[in-house]
Amino acid sequence: MKLKPLGDKVVLKHLEAEEKTKSGIILTGTAKEKPQEAEVVAVGPGGIIDGEKVNMEVKIGDKVIYSKYSGSEVTLDKEEYVIVKQGDILAVVE
Amino acid sequence: MKLKPLGDKVVLKHLEAEEKTKSGIILTGTAKEKPQEAEVVAVGPGGIIDGEKVNMEVKIGDKVIYSKYSGSEVTLDKEEYVIVKQGDILAVVE
Amino acid sequence: MKLKPLGDKVVLKHLEAEEKTKSGIILTGTAKEKPQEAEVVAVGPGGIIDGEKVNMEVKIGDKVIYSKYSGSEVTLDKEEYVIVKQGDILAVVE
Amino acid sequence: MKLKPLGDKVVLKHLEAEEKTKSGIILTGTAKEKPQEAEVVAVGPGGIIDGEKVNMEVKIGDKVIYSKYSGSEVTLDKEEYVIVKQGDILAVVE
Amino acid sequence: MKLKPLGDKVVLKHLEAEEKTKSGIILTGTAKEKPQEAEVVAVGPGGIIDGEKVNMEVKIGDKVIYSKYSGSEVTLDKEEYVIVKQGDILAVVE
Amino acid sequence: MKLKPLGDKVVLKHLEAEEKTKSGIILTGTAKEKPQEAEVVAVGPGGIIDGEKVNMEVKIGDKVIYSKYSGSEVTLDKEEYVIVKQGDILAVVE
Amino acid sequence: MKLKPLGDKVVLKHLEAEEKTKSGIILTGTAKEKPQEAEVVAVGPGGIIDGEKVNMEVKIGDKVIYSKYSGSEVTLDKEEYVIVKQGDILAVVE
Repeated sequence: MKLKPLGDKVVLKHLEAEEKTKSGIILTGTAKEKPQEAEVVAVGPGGIIDGEKVNMEVKIGDKVIYSKYSGSEVTLDKEEYVIVKQGDILAVVE
Repeated sequence: MKLKPLGDKVVLKHLEAEEKTKSGIILTGTAKEKPQEAEVVAVGPGGIIDGEKVNMEVKIGDKVIYSKYSGSEVTLDKEEYVIVKQGDILAVVE
Repeated sequence: MKLKPLGDKVVLKHLEAEEKTKSGIILTGTAKEKPQEAEVVAVGPGGIIDGEKVNMEVKIGDKVIYSKYSGSEVTLDKEEYVIVKQGDILAVVE
Repeated sequence: MKLKPLGDKVVLKHLEAEEKTKSGIILTGTAKEKPQEAEVVAVGPGGIIDGEKVNMEVKIGDKVIYSKYSGSEVTLDKEEYVIVKQGDILAVVE
Repeated sequence: MKLKPLGDKVVLKHLEAEEKTKSGIILTGTAKEKPQEAEVVAVGPGGIIDGEKVNMEVKIGDKVIYSKYSGSEVTLDKEEYVIVKQGDILAVVE
Repeated sequence: MKLKPLGDKVVLKHLEAEEKTKSGIILTGTAKEKPQEAEVVAVGPGGIIDGEKVNMEVKIGDKVIYSKYSGSEVTLDKEEYVIVKQGDILAVVE
Repeated sequence: MKLKPLGDKVVLKHLEAEEKTKSGIILTGTAKEKPQEAEVVAVGPGGIIDGEKVNMEVKIGDKVIYSKYSGSEVTLDKEEYVIVKQGDILAVVE
């Protein structure tokens, strides 16, 4: 069982707290928009979204920073996921 | 008697509580946007929506995650349905 | 005397309460958007609406589900009508 | 002295209360949008409005239903007029 | 010293109270949008505004009705002016 | 050290109070939008802004009226500047 | 470990307080929009953003003024960064 996102949507999985500590990333933000780190686990096909062509820039395995409030949380087989539009992903952490 | 959605609209039917338990899907979300699981029972023809071409990506029988607050609930012949725009469907569960 | 809607507008007439009972349709909805059943009594010519081509998908006699808050109520010759844009019609009931 | 509307704007004159009674039209509406009946007394040239081509569908003498809150009231030579955009006209009464 | 408006902007000068009485125009309006009469004293060049071609339909000397709240008031050499976008002009008074 | 604005942005410098008196310009406005006079000290390159071509119509040295609330104030080397989009400039004072 | 911004996004690093004093820049602003000075440390590839072509005008090392409330703050390896869209950068300080 897995999630197959539509359009420009991307399924993310939060990184474990330990992994966060190891990478030394501490996330802060304003009350309105809290960026968060997560790993890409599924990527929509892109294509024509709202009449405009969208190319997917992220791939499975990327670690990304995204804006929390734009996503929807889903729990599948006891794993937690977040589904966001690619435009809500701010940056890839390399 | 059945519902034939217009344009990019999709008719969904909520999955039974038992089926939800079997698949192990637990849905959580923020107060603003609660994703929900449902089965596609009818799909609009797509076409030109707000002047942009929309191709329908979901088909009858797909199990999907959608954003609850964007849909309209309808009860027809004692069955409950939700009518959403395809853009409010986040992902297909496979 | 009759109503001839402009552009993408559609004139609807509410179904009688008895007819509603016969068809077994019970309509529920969120507080923000109450879908309603009605019959199409007049259809605008479509054409270029807000600079985009709109084709009319409904026809006189169709029974439709629409979002109540987007329409305007009019009483003409003691009959009540609702005028909505076609985009506010969710589905045709067949 | 007369009003010559610009673009897609239309000058309307309210029908007399007596005429309303004769035609048997009673107008009701939601608190947010009160449709009203009026006669078209001047029609703008249409053309490119907000970058989109607008063709004028109403003509002088048409009796129309419009959404009150989108118009501006003007009194000229002791006659009251309302200036609306054509898109705020819902239907022509025939 | 004079004002040269940019783009689709138009400089208006309020008509004297006496002139208003002579023409018999009394302006009323809703609390949200008060139409006002004024004379055009300068017209922007039009051209591409927000990516769309705008042709100027008014000329210096025109008496126009406009929506007050969309304009900005300026006093230059003891004369009061209002600068509005052409789209906020409702009609020319002839 | 100087400010080089991006895109359709323009750097303005408020005119001295004395200069304002000399030119006889007194600015008034509604509570929502206070127009202000300033001198252009730097002009962005224009180009494609939000996907639309923007040509810069103002040049260094122009005295302009702008809408205060759309700009950002910056103090550089003890001089105060305001950075606005060209679309927020209402008129050039000649 | 570094941040690679997507699309039209830019990663900024706040200038040290000492450096601010040396350059003599004091930033003020309205309560709604506080401009801030920062150095560009990473630039997205630009390309098609919301269906429109965006060319990146800033480069690594540029000192820029931006609107604070549009950005997201991130701390990576004990360094603080802000991720903004290029459109939220007002000017380059030269």
